[in-house]
Amino acid sequence: MKTLRIHIILNVFILIFTFGTLTIVQASDPLASWNDGPAKRSIVQFVKKVTKAGAADFVPPAERVAVFDNDGTLWAEQPMYFQLFFALDRVKELAPQHPEWRDKEPFASLLKGDVKSALAGGEKAILEIVMATHAGMNTEAFVKIVKDWLAGARHSETQRRYAEMVYQPMLELLAFLRANGFKTFIVSGGGIEFMRPWTEAVYGIPPEQVVGSSIKTKFEMRSGIPVLVRLPEINFIDDKEGKPVGIHSHIGRRPVAAFGNSDGDLQMLQWTTAAPGARFGLIVHHTDSKREWAYDRQSHVGQLDKALDEAKAKGWIVVDMKNDWKVIYPPAK
Amino acid sequence: MKTLRIHIILNVFILIFTFGTLTIVQASDPLASWNDGPAKRSIVQFVKKVTKAGAADFVPPAERVAVFDNDGTLWAEQPMYFQLFFALDRVKELAPQHPEWRDKEPFASLLKGDVKSALAGGEKAILEIVMATHAGMNTEAFVKIVKDWLAGARHSETQRRYAEMVYQPMLELLAFLRANGFKTFIVSGGGIEFMRPWTEAVYGIPPEQVVGSSIKTKFEMRSGIPVLVRLPEINFIDDKEGKPVGIHSHIGRRPVAAFGNSDGDLQMLQWTTAAPGARFGLIVHHTDSKREWAYDRQSHVGQLDKALDEAKAKGWIVVDMKNDWKVIYPPAK
Repeated sequence: MKTLRIHIILNVFILIFTFGTLTIVQASDPLASWNDGPAKRSIVQFVKKVTKAGAADFVPPAERVAVFDNDGTLWAEQPMYFQLFFALDRVKELAPQHPEWRDKEPFASLLKGDVKSALAGGEKAILEIVMATHAGMNTEAFVKIVKDWLAGARHSETQRRYAEMVYQPMLELLAFLRANGFKTFIVSGGGIEFMRPWTEAVYGIPPEQVVGSSIKTKFEMRSGIPVLVRLPEINFIDDKEGKPVGIHSHIGRRPVAAFGNSDGDLQMLQWTTAAPGARFGLIVHHTDSKREWAYDRQSHVGQLDKALDEAKAKGWIVVDMKNDWKVIYPPAK
Repeated sequence: MKTLRIHIILNVFILIFTFGTLTIVQASDPLASWNDGPAKRSIVQFVKKVTKAGAADFVPPAERVAVFDNDGTLWAEQPMYFQLFFALDRVKELAPQHPEWRDKEPFASLLKGDVKSALAGGEKAILEIVMATHAGMNTEAFVKIVKDWLAGARHSETQRRYAEMVYQPMLELLAFLRANGFKTFIVSGGGIEFMRPWTEAVYGIPPEQVVGSSIKTKFEMRSGIPVLVRLPEINFIDDKEGKPVGIHSHIGRRPVAAFGNSDGDLQMLQWTTAAPGARFGLIVHHTDSKREWAYDRQSHVGQLDKALDEAKAKGWIVVDMKNDWKVIYPPAK
């Protein structure tokens, strides 16, 4: 009996100690989901040196601009970009209004559930799917379509909602930068209008700080009511060489920090880190086949090849997801 | 002697009273340069109702977006848009490198000082002048060109620097809105890159909150250094139907308040005020031929015709510059 009692008391002590420590760590460490390693230390060190008044590397708050890719950097992108899942779900939903799709590629294959054949048509096929599912309505109707989809759809492998497949360590990084006077922007190859309806709630990034690819819109008066109609015509592709152009167009100043995960982010990283003064470049390397996915040089989605080589040459930080991150996603709701 | 002494004492009292009152008025009235009239009262009333927590018209801070036209709304625009003066000065500066301009319109007329003949070619002539003077360099070189010009050039009629021809009452309005949680944006037909180098210092509006017309830019590596080169090709015209499109592209949410002065702002005012909830539209009417300029329906610059009629129908506030504004420009430096 006595041994048992001591055992219980000891366990209670261990419990108090454990939870007490956990609480302290979480309260004092804004990057609690990052393991203590070179990536985490570089981030903290960079933020410290650019925010220290009077220091050589000090950056005034107005110029603390940090840009983040979205797919593969802030949320997952496998087995294909989530916006493509959205488009495929839309095709199924719209099919009854388009009997001609039954004999027309890429729609015919899609409706048979054969995604691979549908996408065999490459960029042209994807463009047709995007235009058929993203254009034709007014801007406010599209916001509702995106929100409704995001509230209901679930990822086939994780069974999570897509907005729950954001990376917990990156959420902490966004908050940490903002707490240090940074303005955080998304600069994504994905659709600007596909992201804006939810980035504020999910990432704390308001619509005016989201840069992305877009189709054209047209102002019209319909029965005396002004509307913006989404046209089936590409306006801007915010990828590769397009990213610095998009940054320049929307933000109008060069970022001091850039975060990406693929060759699509290479030029954004080059543009950000080539300027004089303290600059920071970081690449999320997908190395965790158990908790997420492992892919890089050979991947069709989020290929990371040239940028991985250049990271070494330029001193950009490469995050090893498997070893640098304690958790991948936030706790399931 | 006694009378004189009383006189002096009385004067001192008057002085104290006058300056005391002035000080109190300036400290307590954020719109001190506005005469007490319907325009000023409408502004104050609108801000009060959208910022009062729990009220029917309350607007959350994140949605307090206010958009301002620039030419004729925040600074003067007569006898022609200031950006055109910039372009003409650039033509003179670049002429030695372009001997062919001596026989080529619109440059030949311009170099002879005959602006009227040069602009007789209409939009095509203006476009040629803009492309010859705004494109070809990289984005950072252009910022320097704009800043240098603005620091030296003076308006031929007022002898003021152009950045000193901003409207004091509008500066107070911008600050008043920001003090009440609004985010202030410029949405101008003028060049986005012509405005961004100075809007933060002059208006307190950072580059990422400036929307305007643009030419295309291209990302290039030059001797291993990434640059954005300005191309002689129109990207976007942020005027008339373009303004709601520009707002949607850059801001991604509908403003609750819009401020303009011409028919170029009509669609922006329609788009802003047509949405449900509290909305505010205001037009600056140039009625002061002595302190500024008086023009509206027949003017070639800043024509105000349709929007003036629609203001009555829609309940937009029309500012009468002559009677609503105590001063036009800030004190000369």
